Amino acid sequence: MQSERRNALRKVLVNDWALFLDPISIHYLSGFSGSNALLLVSPSSSEDLLITDARYRERIKLISQDINCKVEINLFESLPRLLPQKINLVVDPKRLTMNQGAVLKDLLPNVVIDARDNLLDEMRAVKDEAEIDSLRKACDITSQSLWYLINDLRAGMSERQIAKKFWQNALERGADELAFETIVASGVNGASAHHLPTGRVLERGDMVTIDCGVKYQGYCSDMTRTVFIGQSHSWQVEIYQAVMQAQGLARESAQVMMKANEIDAKARDYIHSAGFGEYFIHGTGHGVGLEVHEAPYISKTNSVHLKENFCFTVEPGIYLPGQGGVRIEDTCILTGEGLEVLTKGSHEIVCVG
Amino acid sequence: MQSERRNALRKVLVNDWALFLDPISIHYLSGFSGSNALLLVSPSSSEDLLITDARYRERIKLISQDINCKVEINLFESLPRLLPQKINLVVDPKRLTMNQGAVLKDLLPNVVIDARDNLLDEMRAVKDEAEIDSLRKACDITSQSLWYLINDLRAGMSERQIAKKFWQNALERGADELAFETIVASGVNGASAHHLPTGRVLERGDMVTIDCGVKYQGYCSDMTRTVFIGQSHSWQVEIYQAVMQAQGLARESAQVMMKANEIDAKARDYIHSAGFGEYFIHGTGHGVGLEVHEAPYISKTNSVHLKENFCFTVEPGIYLPGQGGVRIEDTCILTGEGLEVLTKGSHEIVCVG
Repeated sequence: MQSERRNALRKVLVNDWALFLDPISIHYLSGFSGSNALLLVSPSSSEDLLITDARYRERIKLISQDINCKVEINLFESLPRLLPQKINLVVDPKRLTMNQGAVLKDLLPNVVIDARDNLLDEMRAVKDEAEIDSLRKACDITSQSLWYLINDLRAGMSERQIAKKFWQNALERGADELAFETIVASGVNGASAHHLPTGRVLERGDMVTIDCGVKYQGYCSDMTRTVFIGQSHSWQVEIYQAVMQAQGLARESAQVMMKANEIDAKARDYIHSAGFGEYFIHGTGHGVGLEVHEAPYISKTNSVHLKENFCFTVEPGIYLPGQGGVRIEDTCILTGEGLEVLTKGSHEIVCVG
Repeated sequence: MQSERRNALRKVLVNDWALFLDPISIHYLSGFSGSNALLLVSPSSSEDLLITDARYRERIKLISQDINCKVEINLFESLPRLLPQKINLVVDPKRLTMNQGAVLKDLLPNVVIDARDNLLDEMRAVKDEAEIDSLRKACDITSQSLWYLINDLRAGMSERQIAKKFWQNALERGADELAFETIVASGVNGASAHHLPTGRVLERGDMVTIDCGVKYQGYCSDMTRTVFIGQSHSWQVEIYQAVMQAQGLARESAQVMMKANEIDAKARDYIHSAGFGEYFIHGTGHGVGLEVHEAPYISKTNSVHLKENFCFTVEPGIYLPGQGGVRIEDTCILTGEGLEVLTKGSHEIVCVG
């Protein structure tokens, strides 16, 4: 699987070499997980090489059938010996520090360091079967835990308690870790798109927005629902329905070969026509995979064409300063028949407690 | 508190400006937590500025008493307007990507980008009172959860079950999140210093190494114990005692103004004299704070002098390939009277189950 990914990259590289230092790219291309490693992809598969330190001597045995592995004290120092003279060495400048770039230039004076933005983004955006299985499982755990939690919401619970309950429940259901710090934004705090849980307790008449996700075998999920506590006010119902309609329109419009910004426009235009355009302050979605935010970004400015097996969120929102907010989000996979929603459950108004 | 940190940095910078893009530095210098922000520290405190996007409009109200805050769609674009011509702009090249460095050069053709390695490392290594409180709490939660877990270990439990139990228990005790993926390495897996939990179940006669830590208000803890299940073999006792002695010697030797590598030598020389030198394959310790690995590194090659209120681990280990391993680790704070151990509990052999 990982060797196929390296082969696909090799086709892009033609006769160049590529070097990776960030754990995500290395995990994607070799299966290795660890905090300190260096991966070389060469023009010939037999020369691909993973270098790490002695702490991982046992762990590399898991992948050494698939790729040459080496243990070194200083990962960089062996590079001048390992690399031919006068090659093009491709790196992704978003995933290398300035410092790493400078060290490479010093160590390899005859090598051309060729910075190519987003080197793996396009490959990574198209998920293979094993990746979809992991995404599906991460989304299952998340939606089950979130709905379990929603059923239990009551006035008097604090945002922090709710966040913790999600974590505990997701863990019991088999999550490996959280994909990001759970957002629980109740009442007026809902006006903040990225609110961190506080000690504020739910009150009757609040809306509460819960944005949560987990990792399963490295893959993330991302899901949001806004729920009513005890009763609803008409302004709340009005923005809820605008977001719900916008989210449904965007989800249902998605097709292979559509542009990302066309999906964004479906949600944005609807919210604009409902009179809340200035309160939808972020993009409509983002890719989900090994990272919880990755390509493709479903935004006003991104005109990339969407492909089959792209995995991304659809998550419009309305945030009224001093009042509150609504966001509805699903993680979805794009199929030949349109978007399949991986994070299950109703989009309608739910009132509990 | 954060403004004092910026003032301390200002003294180092003299008349230069500094720019930060990484969440950890920004959190340390401003108190802001978020995935997308830019912080400018200027020669005059009134010109310090945090820029973020609209998702964090509410969150910046928490810090806006202390520092000017601004919301922008593109964080970089306002820089040419905000910065005077011909300044020195200091950045930490380990905390900026190559790409960010290139964007800055393009945007600010008249500004000298002055890369200074480890710009905040020395400041961050010395912990203030509030930081020590958080570290102490993170270490309390960790040691309580780890000892609770150790009491419950039995033959038949899997490494994965044990890791999950730690997480659940730490969460109940008030942890915000894990500081890193818990390591549970039993039997022969203990030969791997950085083993990830598998389905392997504990057997009578195993040693099991548990390396765990949590975050509390942003601050990390890091602690390891190796425990015997049911019975012990003489080779296990031999390496355990070597590690225990080495860890005690290193801990007890630590004094303000000692060099980091002198502490490393205390542990390393002892393990060498016990005949296991080649199996101690990592440094003796590392700093702990907002990051679980930060300065000071307690290694063979680091000759930095240790200061009061440095917080770091002491964690020698012996790893016998094909057999198993032992590591004993505490997070400690350096005081005028030597090291205070924050991760409580015995270092002696514990046999359970």
